Amino acid sequence: MADLAERGADHGTPTMRRPAEPGFSAAAIDTPALVVDLDAMEANIARMAREAAALSMRLRAHAKTHKCTAIARAQVAAGAVGVAVQKVGEAEAMVDGGIRDVLVTNQIIAPAKLDRLAALARRATLGLCVDSGEGAVRASTAATAAGVTLDVMIEIDVGQARCGVRPGAEALALARQVAGLPGLRFAGLQAYHGGIQHLATPAERAAAVAAFTQPTRDTADALSAAGLAPKTVGGAGTGSFRHEAAAGVWNEIQPGSYVLMDADYGGLDTGDEAPFAHALYLATTVISRRDGGHAVLDAGHKAASIDCGPPVPVWPPGARATSLNDEHTVLALPGGHELPLGAPCWLIPGHVDPTVNLHDWLVAVRGLELKDGRPVAGTVEAVWRVDARGAYS
Amino acid sequence: MADLAERGADHGTPTMRRPAEPGFSAAAIDTPALVVDLDAMEANIARMAREAAALSMRLRAHAKTHKCTAIARAQVAAGAVGVAVQKVGEAEAMVDGGIRDVLVTNQIIAPAKLDRLAALARRATLGLCVDSGEGAVRASTAATAAGVTLDVMIEIDVGQARCGVRPGAEALALARQVAGLPGLRFAGLQAYHGGIQHLATPAERAAAVAAFTQPTRDTADALSAAGLAPKTVGGAGTGSFRHEAAAGVWNEIQPGSYVLMDADYGGLDTGDEAPFAHALYLATTVISRRDGGHAVLDAGHKAASIDCGPPVPVWPPGARATSLNDEHTVLALPGGHELPLGAPCWLIPGHVDPTVNLHDWLVAVRGLELKDGRPVAGTVEAVWRVDARGAYS
Repeated sequence: MADLAERGADHGTPTMRRPAEPGFSAAAIDTPALVVDLDAMEANIARMAREAAALSMRLRAHAKTHKCTAIARAQVAAGAVGVAVQKVGEAEAMVDGGIRDVLVTNQIIAPAKLDRLAALARRATLGLCVDSGEGAVRASTAATAAGVTLDVMIEIDVGQARCGVRPGAEALALARQVAGLPGLRFAGLQAYHGGIQHLATPAERAAAVAAFTQPTRDTADALSAAGLAPKTVGGAGTGSFRHEAAAGVWNEIQPGSYVLMDADYGGLDTGDEAPFAHALYLATTVISRRDGGHAVLDAGHKAASIDCGPPVPVWPPGARATSLNDEHTVLALPGGHELPLGAPCWLIPGHVDPTVNLHDWLVAVRGLELKDGRPVAGTVEAVWRVDARGAYS
Repeated sequence: MADLAERGADHGTPTMRRPAEPGFSAAAIDTPALVVDLDAMEANIARMAREAAALSMRLRAHAKTHKCTAIARAQVAAGAVGVAVQKVGEAEAMVDGGIRDVLVTNQIIAPAKLDRLAALARRATLGLCVDSGEGAVRASTAATAAGVTLDVMIEIDVGQARCGVRPGAEALALARQVAGLPGLRFAGLQAYHGGIQHLATPAERAAAVAAFTQPTRDTADALSAAGLAPKTVGGAGTGSFRHEAAAGVWNEIQPGSYVLMDADYGGLDTGDEAPFAHALYLATTVISRRDGGHAVLDAGHKAASIDCGPPVPVWPPGARATSLNDEHTVLALPGGHELPLGAPCWLIPGHVDPTVNLHDWLVAVRGLELKDGRPVAGTVEAVWRVDARGAYS
């Protein structure tokens, strides 16, 4: 922190104002702020740990959702083997925060970033995904220079058309190359499809997983036949993990959103399973209003992502955001409802991961109770830094 | 900074890694990072100062665009009277950064925030917008408690349907109330319409301004007739300021985007006027690729806002982002083009304000030259903290 202070000294006072302090009542939290319902979050963590165990799946919680080592530690304490992240900077924050097993579910290509990853491998079990021979060679170079071993997952493209080699021969050839490179340990297959997580019904999600189960199985079988049996077949998010678990190919699930949830996931049909509990709110205040159900809040898309739709007011039923600007959300309230000037208005974020990324702090509240969309009980237990936040990599 | 260090001490190492240091070549900037073309930015600042002077307009630069006091100081040094901001936290950062005239172009309702604003008024000229009697009374209470005077602009709704009272009688009544309250100085009218800034042609933007010119003029006239002549009639953004200036009612323009620009503004028809120069890039690196023009970059919508469309690759012509996830942008490249693994790929952000809000640093480069979308010349002159960033208010 000392050198940050020095570096930042000529740029004005850092303005990462904390929106609350431990001991505050929930109603006293400054707005806008992200509030975590601790009881709901802990129930989600416990439930996912139970479900993973019942499904005989290893659970690796995806920390890109919350970017917060305090939450990662709670997930590991409840039984997660470690965390997944998307960036080297996130991996550094997690290891600094005490997490001892981190998988970067992404390709890392820049030599300087691979050097940072290799340095981390002195302090924790570190893995990354690879989808090119060039990427494997660069990872090997960094690992051998640092005198460490990096776990390597071969990422296969199971339909997202983003990263990954083709299942089958391409994956096998790359695994062989990885197995022959110093400083790398071939660890398995990464087979994740983000695009299917938000399909509306369990039947649709099951069908989507079924569509890439056979190529994943065939690839795993081909690896085993070549003496490269994958220790791990990983993937599976909050929307689909039960289907990957049922497929009999995957042995590691990597869900993220379940821990806090959002309006997008909360709106899915989960069939016989109850959805995970909403545990994240954007606390705002009404700063302008008119008769006829028009209210303007002190938070816009610089505080709530809109990539999966706008945040949804907890109350009144039927209220909706009609527009978001940088620092404003305009609400249309259903007939007969008005929100007075200065009133609190809590919302459920549309998409948890990019929303948390906009904030420096998560205010963790114990005993939270909302009535008519405003907190009537609850005490701030902790104010967590979103300590893996930032666009750096 | 000391107490921040203390507060953050149990939350892991802060990971606000700087993507470059002064003296680095532009090609050595870590990715993803926001890069400012200093020469282009300074040309934009000088040009807007010249245009405002030629139009006899006072220029108040909107700092919500860049949230960076280094840029605000450059704007004021070139002739801006001060800055506009949207939040008390931004106002605090600007005053801490040496700006001596700050207008919050927003309603501030929470007493604790008004107290912070009043405290700032001991060190700088501070103003805010008001659109309710309750808001005026609260501002007066805070100002009198602090022994300061706050400038108050009556915000009128000129068509955006967000904040603001109706032009005419409502505005006059509120101005009378403000003028009678201790600690407040009635300063004028705020008449801004954000929604028209991005209309495609100058003719459309002129027509849109014309539609709210008469009610704004009538309100200003009614105020003058009542002995409350508005010292300032403010508003006008990068897309429309020439039209408000031509209307003969406004005397202060508050553009923000012109200083850095973005793909959205860059795509507008500006008629006889050349557009302001692109001065902001998102530097990324190719982390995955396939034959057939498929490339994946190491930055997604956690590094580039998508509310006004995705970021646009500088090169090759015709390349476009087909999807953005949290940390990935998938590019489709036109026939015959490939981007090798590890290649730099620079993009023009879709919308400058929310994109800057995602970053902790702006890397300012002197002498930048891009060839085929990658930097071939340029030296990092400064690394600016985005020191008014954050979702707090």
